[in-house]
Amino acid sequence: MRYRKIPSETIRRLPIYLRALMFSKDLGKERISSRDLAEFVGVNSWQIRKDFSYFGGFGTPGVGYNIEKLSVQIKRILKLDVVKRAALVGVGNLGSAVLAYPGFKMFGFNIAAAFDNNPKKIGRKINNIAIENISKISTLKKRGINIAIITVPRDAAQSTAEALLKAGVKGILNFSPCYITVPRKVKVITIDIAMDLARLPYYMPAC
Amino acid sequence: MRYRKIPSETIRRLPIYLRALMFSKDLGKERISSRDLAEFVGVNSWQIRKDFSYFGGFGTPGVGYNIEKLSVQIKRILKLDVVKRAALVGVGNLGSAVLAYPGFKMFGFNIAAAFDNNPKKIGRKINNIAIENISKISTLKKRGINIAIITVPRDAAQSTAEALLKAGVKGILNFSPCYITVPRKVKVITIDIAMDLARLPYYMPAC
Repeated sequence: MRYRKIPSETIRRLPIYLRALMFSKDLGKERISSRDLAEFVGVNSWQIRKDFSYFGGFGTPGVGYNIEKLSVQIKRILKLDVVKRAALVGVGNLGSAVLAYPGFKMFGFNIAAAFDNNPKKIGRKINNIAIENISKISTLKKRGINIAIITVPRDAAQSTAEALLKAGVKGILNFSPCYITVPRKVKVITIDIAMDLARLPYYMPAC
Repeated sequence: MRYRKIPSETIRRLPIYLRALMFSKDLGKERISSRDLAEFVGVNSWQIRKDFSYFGGFGTPGVGYNIEKLSVQIKRILKLDVVKRAALVGVGNLGSAVLAYPGFKMFGFNIAAAFDNNPKKIGRKINNIAIENISKISTLKKRGINIAIITVPRDAAQSTAEALLKAGVKGILNFSPCYITVPRKVKVITIDIAMDLARLPYYMPAC
């Protein structure tokens, strides 16, 4: 089944809902009201209902959402229902932190390869993933990996992206503080870890 | 001037617009159309106009937005018009990456203190910031720092938050993969660096 014309902002919120659902499940809950879900994720409950309406709505009024069922459906929409293998390029501080981060597994990602250009790092293991020479990026296609995470310095981001595209990568999560240019058929999501701090003062009491 | 009833999703997008404006400014541009801005940030142009309407709207039809003026106004709304000093707790891989990240400065943040409990790290400098013993968190109030970034392991996140609150911190950016409980008057924004990867497969072509 294909869902059409879903706003990008709705798609952006689905993982937030999914994480809250998985968290509630870990607490032993089976159902959650849209109000509780709203409080949990910091989004208005009408927004949640509107987001879910794009997929036909998932809830029963007064009973709330079935956590398991809703999680499965969101995962299917996001195409996270099958484990996805990903590669990481650039094992500096941020790359090492990403490799060790437990959250990717929760969303069904398996970081299965890591690359760096520093000979001292090649062969070392982080979180059981051996760091390979960056020249081995070309093997990704053969290994069936088409998702990559870029954590290289800014100046190397564009050339890294190009090497990844040559190796058949179709989706990139970019942590480098720069914009990457790619053909339209490839999806790049650029993350700025400073961006979330920028809305913090707005919510803080004036002193 | 206080702006009321602005949806949290609008506030969340303002830093995204701000970053795009600063980037356009660096390219030597003086004006930008809502359409170009929309393409740049991946948000619908009607959404951008709606977001700006909460503050009275900033554009002139057909002429686009004045980049400098709009940046100043967004910064004022987000209370980023004065440089804010922040502290970081937990100088592991992620903490080190955050300390070295250039993006915070762009939004008007100065990471002015860093703490860790590892004696081997105390006294070392990263990006010209000396790492202090975690017991020194209590000095933050005196130093006028009321924003903190938490990059400690999950198990230590709650106790770290409590120590920060005791030291007068009012806003926390939490990178630990867990929810932190704080009094209502304190604002916590929790970041999950895996969340953005979770919407990537949705946009990727089926193979």
